[in-house]
Amino acid sequence: MLSKFFVNAERAHAHCDLYCGVYDPAQAKIEALSCKKTMVKYHESSDEHFRQRCVLVKEERAEETKHHLMVLWADFFTPAHFEEFPDLHAQFWRAIHQAGEVKKSTDPAVADQLLAYIDEIAEVFWATEKGQDMGVYSPH
Amino acid sequence: MLSKFFVNAERAHAHCDLYCGVYDPAQAKIEALSCKKTMVKYHESSDEHFRQRCVLVKEERAEETKHHLMVLWADFFTPAHFEEFPDLHAQFWRAIHQAGEVKKSTDPAVADQLLAYIDEIAEVFWATEKGQDMGVYSPH
Amino acid sequence: MLSKFFVNAERAHAHCDLYCGVYDPAQAKIEALSCKKTMVKYHESSDEHFRQRCVLVKEERAEETKHHLMVLWADFFTPAHFEEFPDLHAQFWRAIHQAGEVKKSTDPAVADQLLAYIDEIAEVFWATEKGQDMGVYSPH
Amino acid sequence: MLSKFFVNAERAHAHCDLYCGVYDPAQAKIEALSCKKTMVKYHESSDEHFRQRCVLVKEERAEETKHHLMVLWADFFTPAHFEEFPDLHAQFWRAIHQAGEVKKSTDPAVADQLLAYIDEIAEVFWATEKGQDMGVYSPH
Amino acid sequence: MLSKFFVNAERAHAHCDLYCGVYDPAQAKIEALSCKKTMVKYHESSDEHFRQRCVLVKEERAEETKHHLMVLWADFFTPAHFEEFPDLHAQFWRAIHQAGEVKKSTDPAVADQLLAYIDEIAEVFWATEKGQDMGVYSPH
Amino acid sequence: MLSKFFVNAERAHAHCDLYCGVYDPAQAKIEALSCKKTMVKYHESSDEHFRQRCVLVKEERAEETKHHLMVLWADFFTPAHFEEFPDLHAQFWRAIHQAGEVKKSTDPAVADQLLAYIDEIAEVFWATEKGQDMGVYSPH
Repeated sequence: MLSKFFVNAERAHAHCDLYCGVYDPAQAKIEALSCKKTMVKYHESSDEHFRQRCVLVKEERAEETKHHLMVLWADFFTPAHFEEFPDLHAQFWRAIHQAGEVKKSTDPAVADQLLAYIDEIAEVFWATEKGQDMGVYSPH
Repeated sequence: MLSKFFVNAERAHAHCDLYCGVYDPAQAKIEALSCKKTMVKYHESSDEHFRQRCVLVKEERAEETKHHLMVLWADFFTPAHFEEFPDLHAQFWRAIHQAGEVKKSTDPAVADQLLAYIDEIAEVFWATEKGQDMGVYSPH
Repeated sequence: MLSKFFVNAERAHAHCDLYCGVYDPAQAKIEALSCKKTMVKYHESSDEHFRQRCVLVKEERAEETKHHLMVLWADFFTPAHFEEFPDLHAQFWRAIHQAGEVKKSTDPAVADQLLAYIDEIAEVFWATEKGQDMGVYSPH
Repeated sequence: MLSKFFVNAERAHAHCDLYCGVYDPAQAKIEALSCKKTMVKYHESSDEHFRQRCVLVKEERAEETKHHLMVLWADFFTPAHFEEFPDLHAQFWRAIHQAGEVKKSTDPAVADQLLAYIDEIAEVFWATEKGQDMGVYSPH
Repeated sequence: MLSKFFVNAERAHAHCDLYCGVYDPAQAKIEALSCKKTMVKYHESSDEHFRQRCVLVKEERAEETKHHLMVLWADFFTPAHFEEFPDLHAQFWRAIHQAGEVKKSTDPAVADQLLAYIDEIAEVFWATEKGQDMGVYSPH
Repeated sequence: MLSKFFVNAERAHAHCDLYCGVYDPAQAKIEALSCKKTMVKYHESSDEHFRQRCVLVKEERAEETKHHLMVLWADFFTPAHFEEFPDLHAQFWRAIHQAGEVKKSTDPAVADQLLAYIDEIAEVFWATEKGQDMGVYSPH
């Protein structure tokens, strides 16, 4: 945990120089965090109207999560990466599929699993050289 | 004309039995065909305004293709399918990535490759039992 | 399985000849089928969260149905068609309006009526010569 | 300016009485006016980048025009209206189709024709009793 | 009826002179009126499905209100206007924020407040010279 | 500059604990960076098709930038913040307006200005207590 924490801090430091390589997993993660928060709030409230709004906000945010992950998978990663990281396709499938599970559930643990999958992908992302140049922002 | 009409009626009838297994790859394919057609028309015209419209229609249609393929991959197929068809993840990556190539290119051969990838996925789709029930239309 | 596979291959083959004339009504029909399925599932479930998701998925799918029908009506059919098929405007109005009724209802019979209206339009579509060339995929 | 201010205040006041009957055709008209303005500016400029932006703004605005007209046609008007105004279906088809022509053209006269079609529809809209109650704003 | 018709015709005529200055606040106001109507209907009904649809229609319409207000604020008004109307930034913040409150509430009074804020902005809009030329429709 | 750099590194470190307070400005910044990158690539290329795609990607990304900034302004910040930071309304106006300038221009310096405005807003965001709790992800 602790060592992991500092590794992240290091990497965060790096992204002040090189943000192109860092930000795309952030887009998916922000949306997934929003899903989790919405689920928590859903359970904290007994107001019918508020809970309905939680369901629809969650639906939208989970869809955005899927979209950002698809862009990362299809546009950022290359066949060379899939050779180097043989589980990467399955990692993306699990994450994108899990975003669908988040739509179907109100259990924050389902969103936690999504967040864990996104973090795993982010690790791979940051482990690539390409994750640190600007390629990810070119027209796609 | 008349014979054509009945042939179509037959096909429509078949849809009524089997539509779940048939229609989802169709959604991606229609959009990909639209990309191809747009590329052909782009080259047939020398009108600046028309060609610009081709570029933006192609961009949108290719994005729709990606979206429909992602839905199919993440929502329809299950881990059991990926075991049965070990290349399936890569097939989807190639198809979705190729839709990105279609955005980048005006060469109809690039769209033909996309269509071929979609047809390969459609074959797998139809080869599954699940491709024939209604599961694909449930809320996702 | 095997025989099924070849049946599907036949159908796929047919698509390759005829897709321009076939696919556009299919886009509306897929979305309308999705509405119907969602209504059925709505009634099969007593889970509040699931039912709310059904309502919002149905809302979106019905909107897509309307959009695909409008494209077909405004971009594919010409004044000559409206002379040849004098009820065609009203057929489209009924179908698009019925997609609105599908939004308002949870009764699968309302979606069945929508599907019937789309099938009637599809018959007209396939009865036209234009339904068989590629015109429908040009930039619109 | 001051007199202008009060004239506008009057109009604003009138809106408070009558908005249901007034505003929906306005939505389509605003978008169509935007198309026309964009076409004029396209011809006034020789800057490649500006002209490309005109094409894409026009494409979007024309699509919005089509959408607003479809909503009006399918959700506001009823079979009784179509009996009372037998050309109304065709009026809508012409207007929505014309918005497609606006996409295809850079000639402001094409947008003028669209505006004229929308004005004709607006006349019918205002001539109905229903055009003056709030029905148009209910969930659709 | 007849007199009403001519009153409307007059107003339509006025639009033809002045639409650039009139229509943009109208876009936000139509959406806000739709929110209000939806809230009223929400309380008039005890049907679960209808009420859920009200919530999602309101969510969408409120989002559209925010968007139209943002366009007006960022694209129409200039630093010179903000000097002339020192409260104008805050007026826009209140209106856009209030559209968020409309999402959160089912109380029509919350929408009335939004409408009042939009009317205040419209007054400022019409008080500007620029509110009367076509600038608002240029590509933005 | 150097001290500024380390300040940013510190803050980045903080966001590993508390990402809810950090990520929203990131969403706008990622899109703005994408605009800048697209402008640079536009000038590096002489390919007509590629340059047209740059224009449309830039248009979309700038629109996303505007949207993310509006959400931050209207939903995150409160009247108390606007009292504490009296220039904050104007800061948001400049940033959102500048995203419109990015649409109009191909000069990367215009995007640099947008990035600078976003960074200023991010400083304010991080300076608030609320910027560090989860409030920003609640349904809005």
